[in-house]
Amino acid sequence: MPAMPLYTDLADELSDAIRRGALRPGERLPSVRQARASRQVSAATVFQAYDLLESRGLIESRPRSGFFVRAARASAVAEPLAAPATPESTEATEVSIGDLVMQVLGSTRDREVVPLGSAFPSPHLFPLRELARCGARALRVLDPERLLEDLSAGNERLRHQIARRQALAGIAVDPDEIVITHGAMEALDLSLRLLTRPGDIVAVESPTFYAALQALERHGLRAVELPTDPREGIDPDTLAQVLSRHRVAACWLMPNFQNPLGSLMPEERKRALVALLARHGVPLIEDDVYGELHHGSRRPLPAKAFDTAGEVLHCTSFSKCLAPGYRVGWVAAGRHAAALRRLKTLTSLATAVPSQLAIAEYLAQGGFDRHLRGLRRQLATQQAQMHALVEAHFPAGTRLARPQGGYFLWVELPEGGDALALHAQATALGISLAPGALFSAFHADRRLRRSLRLNFGHAPGDARIAPALAALGRLAAAGGTACPNPAESAQSACR
Amino acid sequence: MPAMPLYTDLADELSDAIRRGALRPGERLPSVRQARASRQVSAATVFQAYDLLESRGLIESRPRSGFFVRAARASAVAEPLAAPATPESTEATEVSIGDLVMQVLGSTRDREVVPLGSAFPSPHLFPLRELARCGARALRVLDPERLLEDLSAGNERLRHQIARRQALAGIAVDPDEIVITHGAMEALDLSLRLLTRPGDIVAVESPTFYAALQALERHGLRAVELPTDPREGIDPDTLAQVLSRHRVAACWLMPNFQNPLGSLMPEERKRALVALLARHGVPLIEDDVYGELHHGSRRPLPAKAFDTAGEVLHCTSFSKCLAPGYRVGWVAAGRHAAALRRLKTLTSLATAVPSQLAIAEYLAQGGFDRHLRGLRRQLATQQAQMHALVEAHFPAGTRLARPQGGYFLWVELPEGGDALALHAQATALGISLAPGALFSAFHADRRLRRSLRLNFGHAPGDARIAPALAALGRLAAAGGTACPNPAESAQSACR
Repeated sequence: MPAMPLYTDLADELSDAIRRGALRPGERLPSVRQARASRQVSAATVFQAYDLLESRGLIESRPRSGFFVRAARASAVAEPLAAPATPESTEATEVSIGDLVMQVLGSTRDREVVPLGSAFPSPHLFPLRELARCGARALRVLDPERLLEDLSAGNERLRHQIARRQALAGIAVDPDEIVITHGAMEALDLSLRLLTRPGDIVAVESPTFYAALQALERHGLRAVELPTDPREGIDPDTLAQVLSRHRVAACWLMPNFQNPLGSLMPEERKRALVALLARHGVPLIEDDVYGELHHGSRRPLPAKAFDTAGEVLHCTSFSKCLAPGYRVGWVAAGRHAAALRRLKTLTSLATAVPSQLAIAEYLAQGGFDRHLRGLRRQLATQQAQMHALVEAHFPAGTRLARPQGGYFLWVELPEGGDALALHAQATALGISLAPGALFSAFHADRRLRRSLRLNFGHAPGDARIAPALAALGRLAAAGGTACPNPAESAQSACR
Repeated sequence: MPAMPLYTDLADELSDAIRRGALRPGERLPSVRQARASRQVSAATVFQAYDLLESRGLIESRPRSGFFVRAARASAVAEPLAAPATPESTEATEVSIGDLVMQVLGSTRDREVVPLGSAFPSPHLFPLRELARCGARALRVLDPERLLEDLSAGNERLRHQIARRQALAGIAVDPDEIVITHGAMEALDLSLRLLTRPGDIVAVESPTFYAALQALERHGLRAVELPTDPREGIDPDTLAQVLSRHRVAACWLMPNFQNPLGSLMPEERKRALVALLARHGVPLIEDDVYGELHHGSRRPLPAKAFDTAGEVLHCTSFSKCLAPGYRVGWVAAGRHAAALRRLKTLTSLATAVPSQLAIAEYLAQGGFDRHLRGLRRQLATQQAQMHALVEAHFPAGTRLARPQGGYFLWVELPEGGDALALHAQATALGISLAPGALFSAFHADRRLRRSLRLNFGHAPGDARIAPALAALGRLAAAGGTACPNPAESAQSACR
């Protein structure tokens, strides 16, 4: 494995410092001479690092003065706020979601549509050729008997690779508590089925991943939606109040880079969450599919890392970080592992072996971390670009989240904006987006109606992104009201 | 693709004639000279064909007289009978199955255990190397965008290949009604979820596949068990009575080579079944995973072939006939296709792409039919061998099914036999078997307690099979009662 270029280390470290606030807007970065001396690197390395930070929109060069942390980025556009927790909003709700999900997902399948509404990162971001080579190699030497021996829990080598990686990231997981699943979706669905009976109450974030709401609906469950801050996720104190009022069978949460908000629960919140749930004996279904896609230098710990009672079922996959379409996920199910393995066996028997072998081989040969560093850097750069485009084109008063990972940008239009109308108009222009209404079963939060999720995990260099955002901005500025003629609306004629 | 050796065509044709009764026990086969003349083949071809039929136990040579259809095979051991339909046995039953399923499945994973209880054919029976090559080739040229475009319904090329094959077999299926699933298990589970609500009644065969009973249990459904004849499957007249007494939400049946009995519904029964269900507006979930594994010369039609109302959801897979562990199945869902595709999307998003591509490529290159012919021949031969071994070693009064396809042999021990006790004793000797109790939620049928399912889809040449069946026969002769010392029981000492 070739060594990482040093300039990206330096850039990642400085990015972290800026995000943490250790380097504030307007502050001057060390001169090239200073940086060379303090870091023992070449001038070229420093220049390359500063170039990268500039391309991400984090710093700017001022002629004859040096490099400065950008002020504009941090202040021009406000972040969205969490909806307040009201007694009404945290009532248990019957779940029902319409055809909107299928409509937005459907547009994902059409390569002519600009994929701002897609739930998936572009397949062009992944080492598909290398995975194919690994799969071919592993299948060539497959002992046929393993096809039966790896039933239920999944390929043993893969489970060990996963446990080893998790351990290195500070997450203690036993290979025997891991069940390989058909993507994270099966991991989440099995966990939910294991822990609940029809009529039970499940606490979820609001807004949240529509598939979670769909799963609750399918299984006849009721949702309590917890207000979720676009920056720090749910507040354990709010959850404590909910637990005192409702008999909650399980929580389903995404502490790392929540979909759709991109929020990241600080470690102290995660610790408090796990302790609170342990006191109440409520298990946590933790969806951590975006954990590996942090834009900083360290993978944020999942709640699972703070779990001592075995009550966290940590669900994740390789679909968003390595192998889209391979359908390999897993759940580290703690004290529920044996029951979960049994349910997996009786539901779907086993996970596809070619996919498991390809990934196990890829992990064993090394290169995953190198791929991840490149992917994270690309996503951070594309986020900065999309942030700048929204800032440039969307109407004043638009709020924009600042996710520290993942590939979703949560946008709140100004008062009066209508994301569903914008969605309809954008569809007519061949642009997809994910309107806020997708992400809640509880329709009282009016702000969701003017919110949308944009995907910045598009193919590198996709030239359609900038014009699409300009067009969306014009439509949004024109009011986002339904408009018979998209060309007109782009000229603000249909307000 | 090389031409098939002619002798196997001749042997298959004669096998069919013997099974149909066109050639009766004791009848003389055409002499080699006659056969040469009438078939325009060489003497060697005729000799090879007769050798093959002899190895399957269907004919015997008598010195200086020629070849005769074996009488012994058809009469020495009787076939099991269906349980009579009583008002009690067709009451709707709450479903509950114990740990036995996991225990029997668990033994499948241990290569040291003789796999007579396995639910799976040996992986050694499949062209795994060739599949791996096909997968490598297809992944090498994969257009990354297809990873998104093939979401939900599954790979388009594969769906077309499937529809084409089905059409050639006389089953009219539209590529657009096909949803590729994670094995047939997902196809069946999605179909069941689509068609039922908790508390609904589903009609199933008795005995039946334990995973069907487990699925009913999981979804809070009630089963009506239909008595199933080991030769001809369920009787549509019995089902008509059930439909007049119960409000049935769906039927889940295996008309072809039912698991565990191996029964095959005659075409007239299938036609009557489909017409009956259409009159009552009850959909049929048809599990056809063994349809390709007929031992004769023609694939039996599924009930789907007689469906004009779009009410048959035809579920099958490549797992038992081509690609174990690849987890590729499908459902041709008729008028329920759009709803099923939607449920698939929301439940598991998509089926693993590498598996789909490998199989699509394999089907396109040709060779599947050649593989199937070899597989069918091997299974027919192994069935004859196992039949002979059971006949030789099991106690008088044992009944034995005569399946015309699949790889399961249903055995009914004489009065007083106890299949669960035999299972416990066999486990101690490192031999697995599937006791009858696995296959019913309704425990009033006492004959199930002395029945068991043996798997003859073992690896070709597995030298452990004959001694294992001899040991089982000794245990069964000793009464099949729980016995502290297996060695003793083999000497009939613990009766």
